[in-house]
Amino acid sequence: MLRGLSHAGLGNLQSDEQLIELASRYGFQAVDIDAGGLIARHGLEQARAQLEEKGIVIGSIGLPVEWRTTEEEFRSSLKHLAPAAEAAAALGCTSCCTYVLPSTDQNAAHFMALATRRLRLCAQILGAYGIRLGLEFVGPHHLRTNWANPFIWTLAETLDWIDTIGESNVGLLFDSFHWYTNEHSIADIEALRPEQIVHVHINDAPAVPVAEVLDNGRLYPGEGVIDLAGFLAALNRIGYKGAVTQEILAAEAPQGSPEELVQRSKAGFDKVYAAAGI
Amino acid sequence: MLRGLSHAGLGNLQSDEQLIELASRYGFQAVDIDAGGLIARHGLEQARAQLEEKGIVIGSIGLPVEWRTTEEEFRSSLKHLAPAAEAAAALGCTSCCTYVLPSTDQNAAHFMALATRRLRLCAQILGAYGIRLGLEFVGPHHLRTNWANPFIWTLAETLDWIDTIGESNVGLLFDSFHWYTNEHSIADIEALRPEQIVHVHINDAPAVPVAEVLDNGRLYPGEGVIDLAGFLAALNRIGYKGAVTQEILAAEAPQGSPEELVQRSKAGFDKVYAAAGI
Amino acid sequence: MLRGLSHAGLGNLQSDEQLIELASRYGFQAVDIDAGGLIARHGLEQARAQLEEKGIVIGSIGLPVEWRTTEEEFRSSLKHLAPAAEAAAALGCTSCCTYVLPSTDQNAAHFMALATRRLRLCAQILGAYGIRLGLEFVGPHHLRTNWANPFIWTLAETLDWIDTIGESNVGLLFDSFHWYTNEHSIADIEALRPEQIVHVHINDAPAVPVAEVLDNGRLYPGEGVIDLAGFLAALNRIGYKGAVTQEILAAEAPQGSPEELVQRSKAGFDKVYAAAGI
Amino acid sequence: MLRGLSHAGLGNLQSDEQLIELASRYGFQAVDIDAGGLIARHGLEQARAQLEEKGIVIGSIGLPVEWRTTEEEFRSSLKHLAPAAEAAAALGCTSCCTYVLPSTDQNAAHFMALATRRLRLCAQILGAYGIRLGLEFVGPHHLRTNWANPFIWTLAETLDWIDTIGESNVGLLFDSFHWYTNEHSIADIEALRPEQIVHVHINDAPAVPVAEVLDNGRLYPGEGVIDLAGFLAALNRIGYKGAVTQEILAAEAPQGSPEELVQRSKAGFDKVYAAAGI
Repeated sequence: MLRGLSHAGLGNLQSDEQLIELASRYGFQAVDIDAGGLIARHGLEQARAQLEEKGIVIGSIGLPVEWRTTEEEFRSSLKHLAPAAEAAAALGCTSCCTYVLPSTDQNAAHFMALATRRLRLCAQILGAYGIRLGLEFVGPHHLRTNWANPFIWTLAETLDWIDTIGESNVGLLFDSFHWYTNEHSIADIEALRPEQIVHVHINDAPAVPVAEVLDNGRLYPGEGVIDLAGFLAALNRIGYKGAVTQEILAAEAPQGSPEELVQRSKAGFDKVYAAAGI
Repeated sequence: MLRGLSHAGLGNLQSDEQLIELASRYGFQAVDIDAGGLIARHGLEQARAQLEEKGIVIGSIGLPVEWRTTEEEFRSSLKHLAPAAEAAAALGCTSCCTYVLPSTDQNAAHFMALATRRLRLCAQILGAYGIRLGLEFVGPHHLRTNWANPFIWTLAETLDWIDTIGESNVGLLFDSFHWYTNEHSIADIEALRPEQIVHVHINDAPAVPVAEVLDNGRLYPGEGVIDLAGFLAALNRIGYKGAVTQEILAAEAPQGSPEELVQRSKAGFDKVYAAAGI
Repeated sequence: MLRGLSHAGLGNLQSDEQLIELASRYGFQAVDIDAGGLIARHGLEQARAQLEEKGIVIGSIGLPVEWRTTEEEFRSSLKHLAPAAEAAAALGCTSCCTYVLPSTDQNAAHFMALATRRLRLCAQILGAYGIRLGLEFVGPHHLRTNWANPFIWTLAETLDWIDTIGESNVGLLFDSFHWYTNEHSIADIEALRPEQIVHVHINDAPAVPVAEVLDNGRLYPGEGVIDLAGFLAALNRIGYKGAVTQEILAAEAPQGSPEELVQRSKAGFDKVYAAAGI
Repeated sequence: MLRGLSHAGLGNLQSDEQLIELASRYGFQAVDIDAGGLIARHGLEQARAQLEEKGIVIGSIGLPVEWRTTEEEFRSSLKHLAPAAEAAAALGCTSCCTYVLPSTDQNAAHFMALATRRLRLCAQILGAYGIRLGLEFVGPHHLRTNWANPFIWTLAETLDWIDTIGESNVGLLFDSFHWYTNEHSIADIEALRPEQIVHVHINDAPAVPVAEVLDNGRLYPGEGVIDLAGFLAALNRIGYKGAVTQEILAAEAPQGSPEELVQRSKAGFDKVYAAAGI
């Protein structure tokens, strides 16, 4: 499993280049960045060289398609997907992710039909470039009622949905934070085949009742109460070998320079990886 | 467009054979029956001959798969589909239909995902036999709250769902009763392409506020307030050429012998077809 | 059915704008042009206005994806499809076409697998914009052995392939020239449902043995031996309502100015439409 | 990886029950048998108990659908698939396999289109029962010209085809005999992800030029020249954990009782597994 960083939780990072540099300096192997931007700024060869020199791979790109709102916005944004996928593939990235909110102001069944059609098409396009689509179920309880109608949020529902989408390159973005807030178990992880997991996020949660955990109240790995050692050990046991990327969404920006925050992240990763015995 | 009859609304019919006989005698051209049963009782050649002699085609068969409940029941019933489709195809029937309830006790989004996957598979199997799958949206308002969570019930939502199912042999079972209770318009029909319609039901409704119309309070064509002349004329205008089948679901059995009820149905069809100018 | 023109056979046309102008002046209703280019040159509103003012619609755009060669070229060209489809849709065009050569230097079965996957993805992307994909089977006999291995060229094979591609927005580009060189019949047309036809080409052929007809030896409608009256009447009978577009591929450029050649085309259309009684 | 036996190569086996008994006695863990037949003879509970008691799982069932000939035969046999899949699933079997001949008397491209559609539907039905479809590429050179037109036979072509079929539950039946006769390499195995392999066959080949190896000239594992140690070690290295089943197709029945032949098979498995270090 590759240790990964994203911008979230690292303060005022200036650029993807800085993230690559810091990730490399502190023993991380993956970053979640915009592959197309890196190529646009440096050219393909230089972008590749930069990643190789630093020993960094791109863990995942974000899905550049608006699939949650109107058909017009979906269509209009869809044209960004093939270029983004081409760029990611050119840099060796094989993962593209999006999150699934647990409630919606739309009719839930109708929205599920629309979302299924739209995400299937995204997966089909990504598949042409050898890229997989990861769907992130979202666990914090307050989001289940944040919009008018409940959508889906559990692992089992998400796996059913992936089945319905019906493309072989669709899987999970599996985030320890949502696993925890959904009160899923180690056994739930062990029941997965590794190819069902496209990407992993790792975050910790504060010691409050699980129903009160806030989506933007995430902690650095090892600084909270989630059994991240168990989480990582189970992922390792089933054979997952991809990136495990930190994404610290927080209401208040953390104190410290990006370098200090990467050091803090490294300490957290060291702690939970050691506890997991990997 | 073919005038069609189903068992519903014809009292104590003894058999599909009696329905075929009465339909033929009173100028109908289609019946909705169980194709496999007819073949089982008479053999394929005799079944074919009986239909041909009477000038009757099978308008549609019902979907013999339980797609609304558990995965176990779905799997267990799925094996009935290929034989049913084979029988229907052998008798020249190219339509298989099922209805979609407008609310559900399941999580609506999750059920939509499950239903999409199950009905897609049904469509795929039917497609191997040249048979189309018709989905019937259901309009009566009381059913929208009959179960805990709203599902879908409008024409537009159903068309979106058909798009999501993504098989070219899926379309609408279009029932005048649901068109009326949804307060859809003539223009809504005119916006359809004929190949989007797999089968048509024709029923009338009593003169009560539309929100109070009951699903099992259907009237014979021409005996109620639905603009069936406009409905039929619009279907004819867009080029629909399939069966238009009566399905009188009523809380109380209608008075009269099956033959009298077929005569009453014929009078209704004569009236609304004449009013439609077809 | 709309009378349509393409650049092929009209000599030294200066631009799509000139084609629109001439088509309009001589009673045509459709042109096959590059929708994206028109918008790029005039802006969307002006492009729309120009078409409306001239009473011209875009019959079809060409598929801007290289699906016949390597995976690299396919991927690299795929990103052009969404923008092209968005442009076409913005101008009201619902058709995008490509031709299928009847032989290949690749292993035919393997190429069929690759082509199926690639064209399915093209259809899926086009479908998001409400655009259909038309596949043109190609009849001239000399092309069947022009490359090492036979591929497919008949109507029946192409319909089977469309079934395999399995997207509801895929159909035929039906060209009278290939219908003739394949020695297909009027009954073959009558067996089609109109929605199976995405676009129609009309061309005539010289009075040589059918096996000797050359793909680039096409004549203006009415100047050759193809039963174009029967062809058009049959299309009309089954309910086809789209464009019928001339595409005169010829080894030598025809004599005359574009305007003279459009006049000649008009005379040909007048003749065969009259003979068809439409 | 589970040691598996099929009927092929074990002489006059009386029944699947005898195969289960002998497999168990000599340290095998899997058999390829007809799950539905076992249930029909014993009932589901007894069938399950018999397998459990003997420590045997069903490695794979054969595909009971005729996908290689006419549409009529395909349709007619399709109805056997759901019951077969239901039976297999009830006994815990998750694999169903079929072989792909490397040449065909049909037009190769057209047959590829038909086969793609048919096998996709088979995969879709199997998927409803949690069963995967394994496609076996066939390597012996003489079969490439045994029928008029070349089809596909390499690993790479088969993987492309699986991609085209486009269902996530389709993968390879990977047979050492075809790997060898195709002159594929250890690196070709190492390039596979384990989930791409549905089932494995193990057979050996005589010391004749590879182009002269006959499909029905197979030897027991360890009695020929194939690098089965390398084959098994590579499969183990990539994480394949399913059955490795012997299928000795031979022109002449082997000498000896079934029990003696199972003993001979065991000796072969012991030898090659030991050489593979597993």
